[in-house]
Amino acid sequence: MKKLRFGVLSTAKIGREKVIPAIQISERCVVDAIASRKADRAGEVARELGIKRSYGSYEELLEDENIAAVYIPLPNHLHVKWAIKALEAGKHVLCEKPIGMNADDARKLKEESEKYPDLKVMEAFMYRHHPRWKRTIELVQSGRLGDIKAVHSFFAFYNDDPDNYRNNPEQGGGALMDVGCYCISVARMIYGREPDEVSAYSEEDPKFGTDRLTSGLLNFGSGTSVFSCSTQSQHDQYVKIYGTKGALKLDWSFNYDFDKETLLQMSVGDEETVERFAPCNQFSLQADSFAESVLDDKPELISLDDTIGNMEVIDRVRNGG
Amino acid sequence: MKKLRFGVLSTAKIGREKVIPAIQISERCVVDAIASRKADRAGEVARELGIKRSYGSYEELLEDENIAAVYIPLPNHLHVKWAIKALEAGKHVLCEKPIGMNADDARKLKEESEKYPDLKVMEAFMYRHHPRWKRTIELVQSGRLGDIKAVHSFFAFYNDDPDNYRNNPEQGGGALMDVGCYCISVARMIYGREPDEVSAYSEEDPKFGTDRLTSGLLNFGSGTSVFSCSTQSQHDQYVKIYGTKGALKLDWSFNYDFDKETLLQMSVGDEETVERFAPCNQFSLQADSFAESVLDDKPELISLDDTIGNMEVIDRVRNGG
Repeated sequence: MKKLRFGVLSTAKIGREKVIPAIQISERCVVDAIASRKADRAGEVARELGIKRSYGSYEELLEDENIAAVYIPLPNHLHVKWAIKALEAGKHVLCEKPIGMNADDARKLKEESEKYPDLKVMEAFMYRHHPRWKRTIELVQSGRLGDIKAVHSFFAFYNDDPDNYRNNPEQGGGALMDVGCYCISVARMIYGREPDEVSAYSEEDPKFGTDRLTSGLLNFGSGTSVFSCSTQSQHDQYVKIYGTKGALKLDWSFNYDFDKETLLQMSVGDEETVERFAPCNQFSLQADSFAESVLDDKPELISLDDTIGNMEVIDRVRNGG
Repeated sequence: MKKLRFGVLSTAKIGREKVIPAIQISERCVVDAIASRKADRAGEVARELGIKRSYGSYEELLEDENIAAVYIPLPNHLHVKWAIKALEAGKHVLCEKPIGMNADDARKLKEESEKYPDLKVMEAFMYRHHPRWKRTIELVQSGRLGDIKAVHSFFAFYNDDPDNYRNNPEQGGGALMDVGCYCISVARMIYGREPDEVSAYSEEDPKFGTDRLTSGLLNFGSGTSVFSCSTQSQHDQYVKIYGTKGALKLDWSFNYDFDKETLLQMSVGDEETVERFAPCNQFSLQADSFAESVLDDKPELISLDDTIGNMEVIDRVRNGG
C-alpha cells in the first residue's frame, strides 16, 4: 500500500508525545524525518522515536524530496509562515490548530494554497475524526434531537509556566486560542453555520498578558452556544447539546485517555441511552483521514473555508463580540 | 411548639402538588386555609389536601385572623399585588419566584414592606434551603476550589400548552422568568455579588410571544457565568462551578425527585469525591426556614435586596445586556 511520507517541523511536545507516535501507528502514513532549529535535538528525538532522518533546520527538511507532507506543531504564530513555505516546497500540510494568529492569517494561507491546487492543507482539529463525534453529527442531522437550541461547552487546564508558549501572547497563547478554539469549532460544526452575533468576556493574566479565562455566547439564530475556556482552572472538558426533543452529552470531549472507551450519552424525553466507543487514537485517525485526502485525492475533512470561519469567530470573541 | 399558620392564595398546581403537602409535613408550619376565585374549587382542593377552611376570594382569606402567613403561588404578574395586600392585612409573605414582573415591581414590594417591619417577606427560591446547596456555598467559601472562574448552568423543560401561564407574556411567562431566574440566582449566590456586565440572546416563540430560549453571559469581574434556559427543550438541569483549584457539579440542581438522594460531585486536581445527601423535601425545609424567621424573628434566608438584585439581572438579560 502506498503510504503518505511525513516530515515534522519542530520537536514540540504535542508532536513528540502524541501526534508522531499516532502517525507511526496509522495505516497509511509514516514519519520519515524531523527537523529542529537545533540539529542535536532533532537527532535525539529522531532516535527516540525511530525516525530515519533528522535536520537542523526546517528549510532542510522541506528540501527532502522523499517527504510528501509536513505536520506542523510549531507555536501558533509560526503556523502560516511555515505552512506557506511547505506549500512552496511542494508539500501537503497538516497544521496544528488554530491555523494562525487571526482570520487574516488564515485567509493568507488559503490564498497561497490556491496556487497549489494539487496540495492538501488541513487544520489538525483531531476530535472531528473520532467516531464519537461522527456519530454525534449523524444524530444531530437525523433530527432525533429535534431542533438544536443550545450547545454548552467547557475546556480548561491549569498551566502557569511562564516558559510555555500558551502563556505568551506573541506566540498566540491564551485560553481562547489554545482551547476556546475547540468550543467555537464544535458549536459551528453542530449548527453547520456561522454565528450571527457574538459576545464574550475575558480575564487577562496580569503577568503574561494572555486571556487566562474567556467565556463566550454565540447566537446562531435558531439556537445558541455558550462556553468557557481557561488556562488556569481545574481541568475539565465537556460538551452538551440540547435540542427540542433530545440531548447529547460528551464528557472529556476533545482529549481523552486513548486506552479507555468514550461515551456518548443521549436523552430523548425520559429515555436515556449510552453509546460506547472502543478505545482509539484520534491522532491516528486524523493522519489516515489526511492520507486519504492526499492519496485518493479527496477533499480534506476540515476545509480551509471552515478554518477561516473558525478564526473569524475567534477574532470576534477576542474583540468581545 | 408554636406553629406558623399558613393560608394559600390560589389553587395553582405548584401549591397543590408540591408546596402545600411539603408545608403540611414541615416541622413548624401548618396550612389552615386556601382561597380560589371560585369557592367550589377552593373547597374541593381543601378537602383533597385536608385543609380546614376554604375561601371563594383571596380577600376573604386575608381577613382570616387565624392565618399568620400567606404562601403565594399565583402567576408572576399577580405576585406583588397580592403580596402587598397580604402585608396590609398583617400577614407574613412567602411568594413564588420570580417575585414580580421586573425590578421596579420588586422595589415597590420592598418599599411597602418597610411599612411593616414586623412582617417577613421571602421569595420562594426553594433550592437555597437544600443541604446540597448549603454545602456548595460552604465549599466555595472555604477556598477549596480556589478562585471561582466559571459557573455554567442549564434549566429547561418542554411545555407548549397555550393555556399554561408560562406561555403567556402578560402573566410573566417565558423561559427567563420561569427557569432562567434560577440560573441567575445561582451565579449571583456563588459570586456573592452582582454582575458588572450582562449579554444575552433570546428566541421568541412566534405564537406565544414569550422567550422559549434565553442564553446569557454574566461577567462578575473575577469570573463569569453562562447559562441557557428554555420552555421548549429536552428537559435537564445542571450547574457546574469551576475554580482555579477545583470544580463542583450538581445535576438536577434545582428540582429533583424527593425520594432519591442528591449528589455533589467535586474534583480537586485529579482527586474526585462525591458527597451524597439523603432524600429530603426542599419545600418543607423552605417552609421551616421561613417559620424560623417569623417565629424566632430572624432575617429571611433570601432578603428582599437579594430578590431585587436578581430581578435587576433578569431585566438586564431580557434587554440583551
